[in-house]
Amino acid sequence: MKHESQKNLRETFTGSFPLPAATEPHLRAALDRVLSNPGSLIRPQIVASMFAAYDLPAARAAELGFALEYFHTASLLFDDLPCMDDATERRGQPSIHVEFGEAGAILTALALINRAYALTWKSVAGCSTANQAAAFDYIERYLGVGGLLNGQSMDLNYASLRSGHHVTEQIAMGKTVSLIRLTLVFPGILGGASPDELQLLDRVAVCWGLTYQIVDDLKDVLHTNAESGKTHSRDISLGRPNIALAIGIPEAVQRLTRLIAIGDRMLQRLVDRRPPVAFLQQLRIQLDAEANQIIDNATQRATPHSLQGAA
Amino acid sequence: MKHESQKNLRETFTGSFPLPAATEPHLRAALDRVLSNPGSLIRPQIVASMFAAYDLPAARAAELGFALEYFHTASLLFDDLPCMDDATERRGQPSIHVEFGEAGAILTALALINRAYALTWKSVAGCSTANQAAAFDYIERYLGVGGLLNGQSMDLNYASLRSGHHVTEQIAMGKTVSLIRLTLVFPGILGGASPDELQLLDRVAVCWGLTYQIVDDLKDVLHTNAESGKTHSRDISLGRPNIALAIGIPEAVQRLTRLIAIGDRMLQRLVDRRPPVAFLQQLRIQLDAEANQIIDNATQRATPHSLQGAA
Repeated sequence: MKHESQKNLRETFTGSFPLPAATEPHLRAALDRVLSNPGSLIRPQIVASMFAAYDLPAARAAELGFALEYFHTASLLFDDLPCMDDATERRGQPSIHVEFGEAGAILTALALINRAYALTWKSVAGCSTANQAAAFDYIERYLGVGGLLNGQSMDLNYASLRSGHHVTEQIAMGKTVSLIRLTLVFPGILGGASPDELQLLDRVAVCWGLTYQIVDDLKDVLHTNAESGKTHSRDISLGRPNIALAIGIPEAVQRLTRLIAIGDRMLQRLVDRRPPVAFLQQLRIQLDAEANQIIDNATQRATPHSLQGAA
Repeated sequence: MKHESQKNLRETFTGSFPLPAATEPHLRAALDRVLSNPGSLIRPQIVASMFAAYDLPAARAAELGFALEYFHTASLLFDDLPCMDDATERRGQPSIHVEFGEAGAILTALALINRAYALTWKSVAGCSTANQAAAFDYIERYLGVGGLLNGQSMDLNYASLRSGHHVTEQIAMGKTVSLIRLTLVFPGILGGASPDELQLLDRVAVCWGLTYQIVDDLKDVLHTNAESGKTHSRDISLGRPNIALAIGIPEAVQRLTRLIAIGDRMLQRLVDRRPPVAFLQQLRIQLDAEANQIIDNATQRATPHSLQGAA
């Protein structure tokens, strides 16, 4: 995958939100803190390669990539609030609400969202009206009540919803899959990908998102196992949705293996139709390495005490 | 001003946010509550008349008008949170966070914002690329760190900012003027109004927003006077910005009178250039009635104990 060096990308990202001189000092400080400590910036890198694969302009890719990073960051600021996950640390630093207050964190997140919509608009400005309309419908759906916000609301109300495999999967579809969809499918829509290609991109996004979520859920269950010697995870103690708790460790591993295989098949079909998206196969290898490690871990653990592990 | 009857408008507004079948029940209930209890819906009515004045399509006006109403409503949901104004009632009902929790109120507000951006985009879809770009820059600025969010951040950090007349005015420019600007100037931008007309629309928005804010601030000071017989207002007890407290009642009245006069002059010049915006003069009369009542009230009070009233 061709992209700027990580350092250059971080610097470009940090400078991608020019603030007016009259910006209120607390708001400016909070935004500076968020922008100077980004995550892996994997979204802008994927979007850049997707834009190249669909012959879309590179400058527009940076706008959309940063917009998705802003949306993602804003969702973390909200998630970390005391009324949601009540997390006091993020990316090795105190959470924004710990340092700047809850109101400060909320205004910072809203500023990121406002800037993200502006950048999204800029990124699609040169596309055909039909592709623009489809792209905006897509972003409305997957950031809104048809996606991210719905997943977060199900997550928060998990205790009062009928729990089980379907609910945990719907939460992952909302919270995890939505932004991957926007990263993979949205550029395809702008680039005029065929309905067939769009469906394959969508399937890859769903498989990857669910894979990522199951790996995360298994980690939670297995790591606490390793430490305490009992099946008791952070997700249990917090009453959080966890697919390995909902369907058991062996079934979760089986599901994970199946999702990886389906994702690979869909991706191969996509590469057959549009060879430049082969860069996604490199990303898959990284995702797989982590998944395989967790599968090994779960399988070893399951050999002597399989029923105990899945209790 | 030609518009649907208030009842029809309310019904159209309530139905303007179709929710997917899978919407999480708490989120759906909160959104239903917000949408079924709107405010005066003055924004959609003004936008409809502005679109007509600039020969823009009526269907697009409803989209933008409702979008602005959603942005406004979302800002109220955030303002009412315990970490901001901690208001337990709004529009005669318990605040959304009281009934649906803080996280519920936040997700509801974010759903409104997401829908509002989608509707804004739909409303400008048929305009020229240049007018679209200008309109999006405008909305980014006045909803974001150059407008609404900055005003709210100054308001929240008022105690730590150097107080006084300029700060209270900057807060009003951010919190009150921004949405009036979007209601008046944004349609002008889409309709290709001349720079001259845009400037007049902007001046009217500023005069009206500041007028509205001074009236509100004077009400706070004068009403509590009437009840307690002393100059002690809710804004004092909460340490809130209030221009009448910052510069004194007589000076605030003088400022109010001057703003009304300037607003009238700007509006007359605008009507000379674009006669269909004369509907704004009707609105001005309503705003004036309230302002004049407060000016009378302040003047009567000032006659015997002027120094006491302005203390």
